[in-house]
Amino acid sequence: MADEVTLLDFWASPFGMRVKIALAEKGVKYEYSEQDLRDKSALLLQMNPVYKKIPVLVHRGKPVCESLIIVQYIDDVWRGKTPLLPSDPYERAQSMFWADFIDKKIHDLSRKIWTTKGEEMEAAKKGFFECLELLEGELGEKPYFGGETLGYVDIAFLPFCCGFSTYETIGNFSIEAQCPKIIAWAKRCLQKDSVAKSLAEPGKVHELVMEIRKSLGFD
Amino acid sequence: MADEVTLLDFWASPFGMRVKIALAEKGVKYEYSEQDLRDKSALLLQMNPVYKKIPVLVHRGKPVCESLIIVQYIDDVWRGKTPLLPSDPYERAQSMFWADFIDKKIHDLSRKIWTTKGEEMEAAKKGFFECLELLEGELGEKPYFGGETLGYVDIAFLPFCCGFSTYETIGNFSIEAQCPKIIAWAKRCLQKDSVAKSLAEPGKVHELVMEIRKSLGFD
Repeated sequence: MADEVTLLDFWASPFGMRVKIALAEKGVKYEYSEQDLRDKSALLLQMNPVYKKIPVLVHRGKPVCESLIIVQYIDDVWRGKTPLLPSDPYERAQSMFWADFIDKKIHDLSRKIWTTKGEEMEAAKKGFFECLELLEGELGEKPYFGGETLGYVDIAFLPFCCGFSTYETIGNFSIEAQCPKIIAWAKRCLQKDSVAKSLAEPGKVHELVMEIRKSLGFD
Repeated sequence: MADEVTLLDFWASPFGMRVKIALAEKGVKYEYSEQDLRDKSALLLQMNPVYKKIPVLVHRGKPVCESLIIVQYIDDVWRGKTPLLPSDPYERAQSMFWADFIDKKIHDLSRKIWTTKGEEMEAAKKGFFECLELLEGELGEKPYFGGETLGYVDIAFLPFCCGFSTYETIGNFSIEAQCPKIIAWAKRCLQKDSVAKSLAEPGKVHELVMEIRKSLGFD
């Protein structure tokens, strides 16, 4: 393979999907290596000895870990094509801020929607919508968080959209009713091949979530 | 002020100290605005409406939040002087990885050393030393994490050193005995004016920690 790129990943990981979108946007060919997270491979342990987690991008034999760092790395290495981060320092810092916000808030809150009950679940739903509203504010009237083109914040956020219908079913709410701009944005992004082919099927995500819920003792 | 830079901060914040070191390394003059975190100013709420936290760097009227993002912003804007992040994409990603590791691990674990008891405290101590050992491995034989010069990872980690003597007293251990290279590195960095003038006095940090412990019901 020309660029010698391998992605160690697990199909349902939103973090792995970020890397897939970034590689697709840049047109980078790579080998995909699905990892068994219950029986971690020697390669994964060797490539990410600190966290022992996917995704890991192995480029010319050297590992890069942590999805947002990987996306920046991809943007830095394959500079010529569609920039993902703005070059202006202030715009760049803002993109990093919102991607980091998604990391700190959306992942935990959306997971709590389907792993907790009662008051804890209600608090997670409330927090989740507060975050979506902040993100709607940041999106504003732009087609993408990145402005006229798909960028770093879009890539950070999009993978969570595969779980939206599951969160809606379990949490008994409608995201579209409260945050129509977010849904319109997700649909717009899904028209892009780079996104459509990188995201997991919502139905498959739902099945996995229900399996995990069962193992956690939910009905 | 030529560059119109203001730092909203609280003296004991390790995150604020990162920004101070970065500004000092770049020779940027700025106005320092100490914030009362128990009675947050209208300015702080306006400049960081999402987290309502310090530090915030206000540059030409526009806020940048989250300390590691601020340090990258400073490096991007004042490019000419002492680069903090490497320009090579792989080295850059590695620096980001370790700074992020410090954010995810060191802050929480060091706080747990002085806010918990018994088994929880012992687990925090164990985790803390595991992290320090990983960081020692990353430092290797280099004078700084940044190589021959102080860089992004040094700046991310240094502020926690102001608390080392407090953690040692409360946790009843010696960092120097287990991780001598980390202590030698901290002493080396403290010889630099940019670092020495930016870090809080360990004695003052100790006093504050003891006050907080008292309010938490510790003896």
